[in-house]
Amino acid sequence: MPDVTILTEADLRQLVPLDPEAVACIENAFRALATTAVVMPPILRLDMKEANGEVDVKTAYVPGIASFAIKISPGFFDNPALGLPSVNGLMVLLSARTGLLEASLFDNGYLTDVRTAAAGAVAAKHLAREDADTAAVLGAGVQAGLQLQALMLVRPIRSARLWARDMAKAERRAAELSAALSIPVTACPEPREAVRNADVVITTTPSDTPIFRADWLEPGQHITAMGSDAEHKNEIEPDVFALLTRYVPDRLSQTRILGELHHAIEAGQALADTDYVELGAIASGLASGRTDPDDITLADLTGTGVQDTAIATLAFQRAKQVQAGKIFST
Amino acid sequence: MPDVTILTEADLRQLVPLDPEAVACIENAFRALATTAVVMPPILRLDMKEANGEVDVKTAYVPGIASFAIKISPGFFDNPALGLPSVNGLMVLLSARTGLLEASLFDNGYLTDVRTAAAGAVAAKHLAREDADTAAVLGAGVQAGLQLQALMLVRPIRSARLWARDMAKAERRAAELSAALSIPVTACPEPREAVRNADVVITTTPSDTPIFRADWLEPGQHITAMGSDAEHKNEIEPDVFALLTRYVPDRLSQTRILGELHHAIEAGQALADTDYVELGAIASGLASGRTDPDDITLADLTGTGVQDTAIATLAFQRAKQVQAGKIFST
Repeated sequence: MPDVTILTEADLRQLVPLDPEAVACIENAFRALATTAVVMPPILRLDMKEANGEVDVKTAYVPGIASFAIKISPGFFDNPALGLPSVNGLMVLLSARTGLLEASLFDNGYLTDVRTAAAGAVAAKHLAREDADTAAVLGAGVQAGLQLQALMLVRPIRSARLWARDMAKAERRAAELSAALSIPVTACPEPREAVRNADVVITTTPSDTPIFRADWLEPGQHITAMGSDAEHKNEIEPDVFALLTRYVPDRLSQTRILGELHHAIEAGQALADTDYVELGAIASGLASGRTDPDDITLADLTGTGVQDTAIATLAFQRAKQVQAGKIFST
Repeated sequence: MPDVTILTEADLRQLVPLDPEAVACIENAFRALATTAVVMPPILRLDMKEANGEVDVKTAYVPGIASFAIKISPGFFDNPALGLPSVNGLMVLLSARTGLLEASLFDNGYLTDVRTAAAGAVAAKHLAREDADTAAVLGAGVQAGLQLQALMLVRPIRSARLWARDMAKAERRAAELSAALSIPVTACPEPREAVRNADVVITTTPSDTPIFRADWLEPGQHITAMGSDAEHKNEIEPDVFALLTRYVPDRLSQTRILGELHHAIEAGQALADTDYVELGAIASGLASGRTDPDDITLADLTGTGVQDTAIATLAFQRAKQVQAGKIFST
């Protein structure tokens, strides 16, 4: 059997930093989703209630990409009490021509972090004001930092405000980001304060009750909501939908079930059969993104298998170029 | 992060031979399926028509088993022209308590071969006549041999007949099995001839038209049909259902969609809502299997995630005992 390349998280952090190429890779994945015969089956989900655990398995075949990824994402929410991370996982990369195993990417969720943040950058590139210079980040987890970092790759952000339920954590993350990104990042005790006058608002929490209110919206704002990847999660008040110029899902069939749209439909603030234009169609030029500085836009990102296939293939191609990782004969 | 054990096909062939312990492992898995709160989501399937390829992903959480497997099974049917096998794949084993990756089993489909053959043995143990000494095998692939080998672990088989569309292949496989299993195995040019007077008939082909006819059935026969793992596959003539004493699915919700039952329902020879007793209930003593030497029984095996979780966990436990495989820090 052909050899398998094994890449660890350390390898992958070297090979695939969150940079403009990673954003371009994910933008191309969204374009493919809109313009090619992508095959992306529904997410496989296994719930283990006894262990307060779950696993999601995502995959997608993207015409034109030589490989396809199968991503295994466990979430075990009692792990922190054991001193272990809640979320980790791996990706497996197979040849799209022969199905043979090409690589095992033991990334502990790192590539997911990168492709998720990169999707935020793609959304901001097409939906935020060109001159957006002020960001608000709700949440203080890993994505809070990566989303801000990714946003700075596409917009001239000069300052940011960060809110989280845990103010001490917000202050730590704000200080860390100020140093890492070389802009002032200020922790705020209330989300209202964080989002006021922000050109871009990014919500990155696992909240199951809205943390962003409709009456906070300002003309010209762009919001990226990326925290909701499960039915019960909800960051954006459904009333926001009535005030939007444009609502943009990553994958409409998913956001109707998992995303912010799902809650807006349940609240009667959006219709289940509205044919919203997806991010990939805008990135491909098939539909317009922001057309006026005063537009109010919302990107609803639930995460797609095409992103996984794209980022894992990029990692494998780079690994081959520099002969990274360990080769294993199966 | 904790270390990951990597096991190759060669390791796994050493660690998990097709023997009575493998059969007991799979029997226990079926018992768990009948008696515990197993969680087994629908199969994730990705079709890649451009490459004439497909991937199935199966998983199951089994209370009482410390790990759970995610099995990735690609089938790329143009591979033989490239000198590659059509079917291969791997399993990934995660902790059922923390979700952390424990092992990557690069088995190229070997563990699936073992757990599939072992399920045939479990079916025969509970459904074939105790004194069954004559077997017929339809098909000449890997499962043809393994199913016969597994059957011999549970019944006193003294001779077998084997039929396949390709008579030369049938003769080669029959000669090989005669030598390996130390019983006479005779190749037959017609399936009718192979199954006449057989106590156990095992169908192991990917046929999409029936190869076993209802008017061939004899009192006392047991049939295991294991070739159908997809909607279009069909080995058993639907009229057989009217003549059965007992029909036993591995998983009723699957055989209604994928198995022989599916075709019998379509043909009007079985009802979609009949609550057939599953193999696990019989193996657990919750329902009877064969009760009379003249009973005619059919086991419909489509393959289940509990088998994968059970066999992968067995492999990992044995690997730890003998320190097999390579340990990898992620």
